[in-house]
Amino acid sequence: MKKYLAEFIGTFWLVLGGCGSAVLAAGFPDVGIGLVGVSFAFGLTVVTMAYAIGHLTGAHLNPAVTLGLWAGNRIKSNIIFPYIISQILGAIAAAGVLYVIVTGNGSAIGDFAANGYGEHSPGKYSLVAAIVTEFVMTFMFLLIILGATDNRSPIGFAGLAIGLALTLIHLISIPVTNTSVNPARSISQAIFVGGWALEQLWVFIVVPIMAAVIAGAVYKFLATDDTVKVS
Amino acid sequence: MKKYLAEFIGTFWLVLGGCGSAVLAAGFPDVGIGLVGVSFAFGLTVVTMAYAIGHLTGAHLNPAVTLGLWAGNRIKSNIIFPYIISQILGAIAAAGVLYVIVTGNGSAIGDFAANGYGEHSPGKYSLVAAIVTEFVMTFMFLLIILGATDNRSPIGFAGLAIGLALTLIHLISIPVTNTSVNPARSISQAIFVGGWALEQLWVFIVVPIMAAVIAGAVYKFLATDDTVKVS
Amino acid sequence: MKKYLAEFIGTFWLVLGGCGSAVLAAGFPDVGIGLVGVSFAFGLTVVTMAYAIGHLTGAHLNPAVTLGLWAGNRIKSNIIFPYIISQILGAIAAAGVLYVIVTGNGSAIGDFAANGYGEHSPGKYSLVAAIVTEFVMTFMFLLIILGATDNRSPIGFAGLAIGLALTLIHLISIPVTNTSVNPARSISQAIFVGGWALEQLWVFIVVPIMAAVIAGAVYKFLATDDTVKVS
Amino acid sequence: MKKYLAEFIGTFWLVLGGCGSAVLAAGFPDVGIGLVGVSFAFGLTVVTMAYAIGHLTGAHLNPAVTLGLWAGNRIKSNIIFPYIISQILGAIAAAGVLYVIVTGNGSAIGDFAANGYGEHSPGKYSLVAAIVTEFVMTFMFLLIILGATDNRSPIGFAGLAIGLALTLIHLISIPVTNTSVNPARSISQAIFVGGWALEQLWVFIVVPIMAAVIAGAVYKFLATDDTVKVS
Repeated sequence: MKKYLAEFIGTFWLVLGGCGSAVLAAGFPDVGIGLVGVSFAFGLTVVTMAYAIGHLTGAHLNPAVTLGLWAGNRIKSNIIFPYIISQILGAIAAAGVLYVIVTGNGSAIGDFAANGYGEHSPGKYSLVAAIVTEFVMTFMFLLIILGATDNRSPIGFAGLAIGLALTLIHLISIPVTNTSVNPARSISQAIFVGGWALEQLWVFIVVPIMAAVIAGAVYKFLATDDTVKVS
Repeated sequence: MKKYLAEFIGTFWLVLGGCGSAVLAAGFPDVGIGLVGVSFAFGLTVVTMAYAIGHLTGAHLNPAVTLGLWAGNRIKSNIIFPYIISQILGAIAAAGVLYVIVTGNGSAIGDFAANGYGEHSPGKYSLVAAIVTEFVMTFMFLLIILGATDNRSPIGFAGLAIGLALTLIHLISIPVTNTSVNPARSISQAIFVGGWALEQLWVFIVVPIMAAVIAGAVYKFLATDDTVKVS
Repeated sequence: MKKYLAEFIGTFWLVLGGCGSAVLAAGFPDVGIGLVGVSFAFGLTVVTMAYAIGHLTGAHLNPAVTLGLWAGNRIKSNIIFPYIISQILGAIAAAGVLYVIVTGNGSAIGDFAANGYGEHSPGKYSLVAAIVTEFVMTFMFLLIILGATDNRSPIGFAGLAIGLALTLIHLISIPVTNTSVNPARSISQAIFVGGWALEQLWVFIVVPIMAAVIAGAVYKFLATDDTVKVS
Repeated sequence: MKKYLAEFIGTFWLVLGGCGSAVLAAGFPDVGIGLVGVSFAFGLTVVTMAYAIGHLTGAHLNPAVTLGLWAGNRIKSNIIFPYIISQILGAIAAAGVLYVIVTGNGSAIGDFAANGYGEHSPGKYSLVAAIVTEFVMTFMFLLIILGATDNRSPIGFAGLAIGLALTLIHLISIPVTNTSVNPARSISQAIFVGGWALEQLWVFIVVPIMAAVIAGAVYKFLATDDTVKVS
């Protein structure tokens, strides 16, 4: 139970930090953090949780990561369901706290940090562009996770490499989909925004999960099996 | 005595670097560092002090951190009082040096880098939003500190994880309260600003300390007790 | 074969992340990542691949790096050709994916992230300035790669140092040549842009390779040979 | 002789990267890197050289660092003179290369990246503010260097901590003096700018050196002597 609580807290932090920085600080007048700041915020939630709770839960913080690690033979299947539930609940809790803060100066939440395509893509990118982007970004994210936690990689650096991978992914792809690669993050925002965000939500659930599972299989092929850790 | 002097110097650096970058460089015309730069500056004061004096004092640099570590059974209670005094004095000394520099081109210090809510929140956020924000940010900060220094976490990375946590916290929350999570930092600025800053100061003393102490208890619950270091 | 596939994927990521962030996000209205964001994106592609596939391929991701490592006696000559082919193909594949995404909102690719001098330098720098810049930047990049992977350097940090070197190189030199230091990256963009980009491409093939080979020789001189790893 | 050449190259890189990014990229239209980018560039020159040549020379790259390490009993006095000469020559060589690049689009070098106070401070700060700033920044820089390379600090992280300290120092103090803390860097720019830059140069030689030597003595006091490495 304690590891599910830790996974809840970790995903809470990912959404509060990542989406919170986007909603509260990205467009702050004159000195706003912009997409660079948001990208670092998302990445640093993972860096900090990797070192804070990695030894307790592995710090997945993302249903796609949990499923990709399973596809890569890194975790047992019996933790998949409770991990994903914990992640989604943590993400929703963060969206709730963020709602309280954001509305604390009388603002509406608007589109929050919801993910979208077409009309609702920050740069008006099509559904096809969105699918390609989310697929490639999640695929590479999982490859980095699987590679950096391979027992042949330098000990201790995985948290930095994986967190900075999420920073990089946001530096590239916020204009296309507002960057998901994480169904829990997308669900948490869509619930509060409703309407279009719920209608488009399937893309940010289906595509990251498919990409993650395929990445798990590809990494198994790339790396010699006997060197892969099962934990 | 030497460790108290080191803690004085470390907190001096946190305030000079973090508040100094905010006051001197955030809004510099055309090429100012903005809130991204200020966030990195705060975080890097902790990164640099963690590696520079961490082996001497633990580099708390923050009364809330000292109390949270005590609540998490990481330090002995007899160092609490001298550490907190050293931190507050170091912070005030930094504010004094910063005063000399800032006024060196004829500027007034204005609101310095004081913390506030309502009228004095950078984004005009209410007292409730300020309390929620300071509580959650300090709570997560302590969880990260306690987790990253757990002896099951990779050796050597705690300084990076903890410093970058402070960067992340600032990326999210400067618009709400100007980000405290550190009573010493808030006290040092309020003393120079006076008036409203002193009136609102209680929030930035009470809330971070409460959050830190609760985080210490929560981390003890999350982690198995026998693995927690007492130093 | 698997290591060539890994090198393909790694260089795919370098071009998709670096050039992708430049094309998609650098100039995004109001909150664009600017050259700072692009510089971090390029560097983080290397950081992430170093920890993800470094144990499989060495993560060269760049023909100049492969040749510089050969000149520094770090790799065997028989992998040069297949590595370089894999890198170029991976880079072109990334440019293709980027083409699909970029055009997904109806935009033209324009000059993509092609490298150039004179008229086609972002800051209109001359051919001489371009050659000097690409030479010095690639020379220093290889010196850093050879030094950070020297077996006397701290274990595990090479990926960070080398990736952040690429960030630094971009922080300095994007205004001059749009920064190449990597023939595969330049080829991939020039193929899609055609015309002037293909005409100027020789600079971004010849100069980085020359600089890399000379850096290999210089590092051998600087360091005592018996301490240099051959892998 | 080889270690002097390495120190020459390292300081060459510090000046080319730090001052180069300032002159070429800080104010680039629309997407310029600003003072945040320049701060990271200066810091990353040190990060990269620490891992690239740290095992050869210690990567001082700065006469104040060499003298502060001597005052802290970390180096033998017979290397002081050749190190400082190598650093100054490397810095001047970098300024020369930068001159060739900068003027390659017909620009004048203007004030290059020279350090100054009063009229020539970026934010018009007085001589007193400049002296206080350079003193405190260099003092803390040396304390971080001495602490992070103390043999009780985590192995391998010193290069990151020290480089990021230089980033932090620039985030705070560019508006005041354009940030020196390094006489070799200041000399290299003043030579090309002449006039006022040469007249004000004494501040950026005398103050950093005094601060560094005092920091060496203070660190010796703070740390127990028997734990300090002599190399």
